[in-house]
Amino acid sequence: MELVKGGVCAAKGFTAGGVHCGIRKNRVKKDLAMILSEVPASAAAVYTTNLVKGAPLTVTKKHLADGTAQAVICNSGNANTCNADGIEIAEKMSDLAAQALGISPDDIVVASTGVIGQPLDIAPIAAGIPVLAKSLSRDGSSDASEGIMTTDTQEKEVAVSFRIGGVTCSLGGIAKGSGMIHPNMATMLVFLTTDAAITPQMLQKALSGDIQNTFNMLSIDGDTSTNDMVTVLANGMAGNPVIDSEGEDFNVFMQALNTVTVHLCRMIAGDGEGATKLLECIASGAADKETAKTVAKSVICSSLTKAAMFGADANWGRVLCAIGYSGADVDVEKIDVRFKSPAGTILVCENGAGVAFSEEEAKKILLEKEITILVDLNSGDASATAWGCDLTYDYVRINGDYRT
Amino acid sequence: MELVKGGVCAAKGFTAGGVHCGIRKNRVKKDLAMILSEVPASAAAVYTTNLVKGAPLTVTKKHLADGTAQAVICNSGNANTCNADGIEIAEKMSDLAAQALGISPDDIVVASTGVIGQPLDIAPIAAGIPVLAKSLSRDGSSDASEGIMTTDTQEKEVAVSFRIGGVTCSLGGIAKGSGMIHPNMATMLVFLTTDAAITPQMLQKALSGDIQNTFNMLSIDGDTSTNDMVTVLANGMAGNPVIDSEGEDFNVFMQALNTVTVHLCRMIAGDGEGATKLLECIASGAADKETAKTVAKSVICSSLTKAAMFGADANWGRVLCAIGYSGADVDVEKIDVRFKSPAGTILVCENGAGVAFSEEEAKKILLEKEITILVDLNSGDASATAWGCDLTYDYVRINGDYRT
Repeated sequence: MELVKGGVCAAKGFTAGGVHCGIRKNRVKKDLAMILSEVPASAAAVYTTNLVKGAPLTVTKKHLADGTAQAVICNSGNANTCNADGIEIAEKMSDLAAQALGISPDDIVVASTGVIGQPLDIAPIAAGIPVLAKSLSRDGSSDASEGIMTTDTQEKEVAVSFRIGGVTCSLGGIAKGSGMIHPNMATMLVFLTTDAAITPQMLQKALSGDIQNTFNMLSIDGDTSTNDMVTVLANGMAGNPVIDSEGEDFNVFMQALNTVTVHLCRMIAGDGEGATKLLECIASGAADKETAKTVAKSVICSSLTKAAMFGADANWGRVLCAIGYSGADVDVEKIDVRFKSPAGTILVCENGAGVAFSEEEAKKILLEKEITILVDLNSGDASATAWGCDLTYDYVRINGDYRT
Repeated sequence: MELVKGGVCAAKGFTAGGVHCGIRKNRVKKDLAMILSEVPASAAAVYTTNLVKGAPLTVTKKHLADGTAQAVICNSGNANTCNADGIEIAEKMSDLAAQALGISPDDIVVASTGVIGQPLDIAPIAAGIPVLAKSLSRDGSSDASEGIMTTDTQEKEVAVSFRIGGVTCSLGGIAKGSGMIHPNMATMLVFLTTDAAITPQMLQKALSGDIQNTFNMLSIDGDTSTNDMVTVLANGMAGNPVIDSEGEDFNVFMQALNTVTVHLCRMIAGDGEGATKLLECIASGAADKETAKTVAKSVICSSLTKAAMFGADANWGRVLCAIGYSGADVDVEKIDVRFKSPAGTILVCENGAGVAFSEEEAKKILLEKEITILVDLNSGDASATAWGCDLTYDYVRINGDYRT
């Protein structure tokens, strides 16, 4: 398993691109992205559990019912959610993309991200799609990745290569954060592509299993978006024996998928709205996996812990507090807490009570850009990791006036 | 039922006071408070559900097991939580208060609030208690209220008078907010006093019932504190027929209690850490009470909605988003949303979709200090109210460096 370049175009047979079509007033930022597979691909997806769902999700769900898709069209700047004509517009977007690519509308994944509740004008999209379709290339992952960004400050793409049945396969993805992120059974927008051959059923199984430990363990602000979606297209062009059941090949595929999704999780967390730091909480020594997940996620979601990390303040009482209200059944008097970063590791709480530690050393550790909060429950062998970011002035600035 | 002055001393037979004993370095801010009833009183309490519990709660729980108490001692500046000697220190505080007042330690409610996990030095408390005990007066509610404040910017006290069985009774309280507030079966520190005669059992029933619609519907930052507690002392000195069962007198008492607790909820919400606005969400037209509560609380807890309100941005999509992920079973396409303040009321979403509205008028409404978000689910007769505040730069500033 090794990291390779190319993002969603790392896998054979995929091209991508992004253009500015005019949904956003800002002329520099691309606002429309497309990904195309040379041949129809197995397709799987997970969607937000929010009852308020973006219209594009309804259309995509219908298109993926047969387990096959060939292209993705996605705009940023407008979520096409809570609009009376939402479905109609999403279908129109899909039709226009299909027409420009010469494929069936039923093979299109359509997605939108941005502000909720403002009508999405189809005109700039209709004008942009033919241009975009012509621009698709093997180098287009970065452009596509920019096209789906909202308040993200960095493009998010990654890919790995791995071997299945003696054949080299690739799997890559692009993602957009960066606010309204607290996935629940699904996540923010993530588009994954692979040239591995795998049936739609096994692809869905791999994706649904993976997100439990990746995107569902990520939180920026506790708000589960209306437009969350992760999709994966597998076009089989690597030529490996088709994965149609569990076993060694499926496990390798799962590992590749997990490598890419963990990487994207960390990128999304580190680029959370206003974030200055990536926070990671590893809960270990738990009696069972669920306990570990509940504890790790509760710490990552605590506004007070997030604000303390922004201030590089080793206020571990807030970590213990967040464990205490998490709902997990833990023995408080066994809990150890450490803060870790490239600058070192420091023990701040042992058996649920404070220990003497150097505030100076703690400050040095917490001034780094990536902080790991290590929670040892000392009650078993299960562990889990959750990702998030600090709570900063910029989160407030960005969200105090998002629409203008 | 009318609002009266006097806070926790409005009821007959109660005196109170507050002093600076030296737990806080800031010499201006009082850090130790006491409330005394002339005679032993019926006592009831609710406590945090956080598994990490402040040592004072354990001691108070033991003291209130017999349903009787006579005095409250509370310090701010240190929560006495997650300390190896916590229970010992809380018992010592209780003993010292009992000794200074000439009553039994078993009749003392002991509480602490402030930073978690730093040893609480008993020396300043031991020196302060005798001075404090001598200073108690009928005018002392405001001093006591200052003594329990942490990052609060305003004292929180209120009282009402009401009639039971032809007799005038009073009920009043003091409270402290203002961060780590997301009560769950209990709440932040609130001390209530009344001269109404009521049995401990009925007092507990009244309190436990009331908080479901008051303190448990309040959230500042989603963090449930380790030291939350609401206590009420009822000394019977008004001379009304003892309330020992449900009925008209109990209902009047519940109304008085609710008037005081709603008032305190609003004061705590409006003075949430960093808050510039009090937010209130009234969910109406719900199929049942639980649905209404879930919806109202989800809106109040949404970081994105809170930040939008700070920016006076009528971004109603975030309100709808928070309803959608609340877990409540609602029909999205029936939801209407309005923003209301002293400057007017404006409809922004009807049947789950945006309506044309004047941004200028919306801005004028949202620039006020008290904003009500009206959510009509149009699916029944149940309603509920939740309280919170906006998310601001100052919340980040206060919590980025709380300990220094």
